[in-house]
Amino acid sequence: MKVGDKHYRSIWFDQPSGQVQIIDQRWLPHEFRVVDLTTRDDFATAIRDMWVRGAPLIGATAAYGVAAEMARDPSDDSLSDIWDFLHETRPTAINLRWALDEMNALLKPLPEGERAAAAMKRAHEIADEDVECNRMIGVHGLEIIRKIAAKKKPGEVVNILTHCNAGWLATVDWGTATSPMYHAVQDGIPIHVWVDETRPRNQGALLTAWEMNSHGIPHHLIVDNAGGHLMQHGQVDLCIVGTDRTTAHGDVCNKIGTYLKALAAHDNGVPFYV
Amino acid sequence: MKVGDKHYRSIWFDQPSGQVQIIDQRWLPHEFRVVDLTTRDDFATAIRDMWVRGAPLIGATAAYGVAAEMARDPSDDSLSDIWDFLHETRPTAINLRWALDEMNALLKPLPEGERAAAAMKRAHEIADEDVECNRMIGVHGLEIIRKIAAKKKPGEVVNILTHCNAGWLATVDWGTATSPMYHAVQDGIPIHVWVDETRPRNQGALLTAWEMNSHGIPHHLIVDNAGGHLMQHGQVDLCIVGTDRTTAHGDVCNKIGTYLKALAAHDNGVPFYV
Repeated sequence: MKVGDKHYRSIWFDQPSGQVQIIDQRWLPHEFRVVDLTTRDDFATAIRDMWVRGAPLIGATAAYGVAAEMARDPSDDSLSDIWDFLHETRPTAINLRWALDEMNALLKPLPEGERAAAAMKRAHEIADEDVECNRMIGVHGLEIIRKIAAKKKPGEVVNILTHCNAGWLATVDWGTATSPMYHAVQDGIPIHVWVDETRPRNQGALLTAWEMNSHGIPHHLIVDNAGGHLMQHGQVDLCIVGTDRTTAHGDVCNKIGTYLKALAAHDNGVPFYV
Repeated sequence: MKVGDKHYRSIWFDQPSGQVQIIDQRWLPHEFRVVDLTTRDDFATAIRDMWVRGAPLIGATAAYGVAAEMARDPSDDSLSDIWDFLHETRPTAINLRWALDEMNALLKPLPEGERAAAAMKRAHEIADEDVECNRMIGVHGLEIIRKIAAKKKPGEVVNILTHCNAGWLATVDWGTATSPMYHAVQDGIPIHVWVDETRPRNQGALLTAWEMNSHGIPHHLIVDNAGGHLMQHGQVDLCIVGTDRTTAHGDVCNKIGTYLKALAAHDNGVPFYV
């Protein structure tokens, strides 16, 4: 999404320099730093030390990490090593493991000479697939926002509450929970976003509010507890949050505080989307 | 309550020095500073700049402020001036106005020569009445905790969640929400307190956790959002919070976040006391 006048993804391949680049998210919202990822240590550090975070972005970063390593050494040993090496950075990250398995399954049967190119192509695809997936969340979510907007009086905005950072910095682009918001803005629907501070790590304050600000979306940063009061007083039209895990039954595990907001939404008849 | 081995109130008259003293709460939990309040400016500053805070404590401080001024100048003009001067510090504080009116009604009919002594006596009474009132909250609350404790297995503690600072630093002693906790400890009932951080001003983190720690009550400081999760998982036996205003119908206005905790308590069958 936009940072000032320019469009950014959270990870991209810079053609002129031939480098994979990321936004080093540790410095946000105070500084916007773009860094090159070159060596396997660069990729590992970026994942381990949370220069990049968010499940989809971690997966894409790992894929590019494998591609960079294949360009250096496309041997079987190298392929096996890079899987272990990158997996070790965040052993509990499902998308990380998925991306590494995906790369491994693709590259293993190929002759060594074809691996580097195939790996980079697949890394691009993984990034693009994530963007498309999130774009479609936005397309579907836009319909929901459009229906709410249709019931508003002229000049009234649609107020959306979100928690944590399920924004484009956690994915490759668009974000999950925020994608419908960007689509609504693109569609000319006036929206305003209540951004939960999201203690204890303040992802809402540090990342989501920065995203909204960079793209020019009207928003207010609020303490986590304020969401209930706002819902009680008709100041929230819908809640959209991310999910860490969703079970086959539809139960959701997500960042601490999601449950409290869901209860308040239920109590006040505010639609709540995950 | 106790700070280390010594018992403190939040405001008191120091016999040896003849001074009204307070804990300058701005420095907690990092420093424990006791300061003298002597001039009317001292009292006004202490209230306005939140050296003291909490409705009952503000009322007691104002009463001592009037007493100090009567010792200096017990004239009608002085009495009228000090009312205006102290009321100006926190015009919306109900207890402040109540204490000033109380002092005014008592002192106005008295000859000037009797005002200083009567004022100091009444200020002591106002402080003592607050202590007694809060002690009785504890006596009643203790019964509730005792019943919960009776259903526990040997060695199990009673887990209590509280929000904001409705502790002794907001009153003259005992606190409102915390008084039952101190009484339970005094009674030998093992308790553990979940202390909400209470954004945005962190009164739970800065004050309630400090109170618990100073008195030696087992507790954990948690982010505001964690309370719901703890209730879902059976880790909270009851919630006790303060109230800023309670209507005749029993509706309660209190610090932001109280509503979310009440919803979670309701959803999980956790008793919720105000």
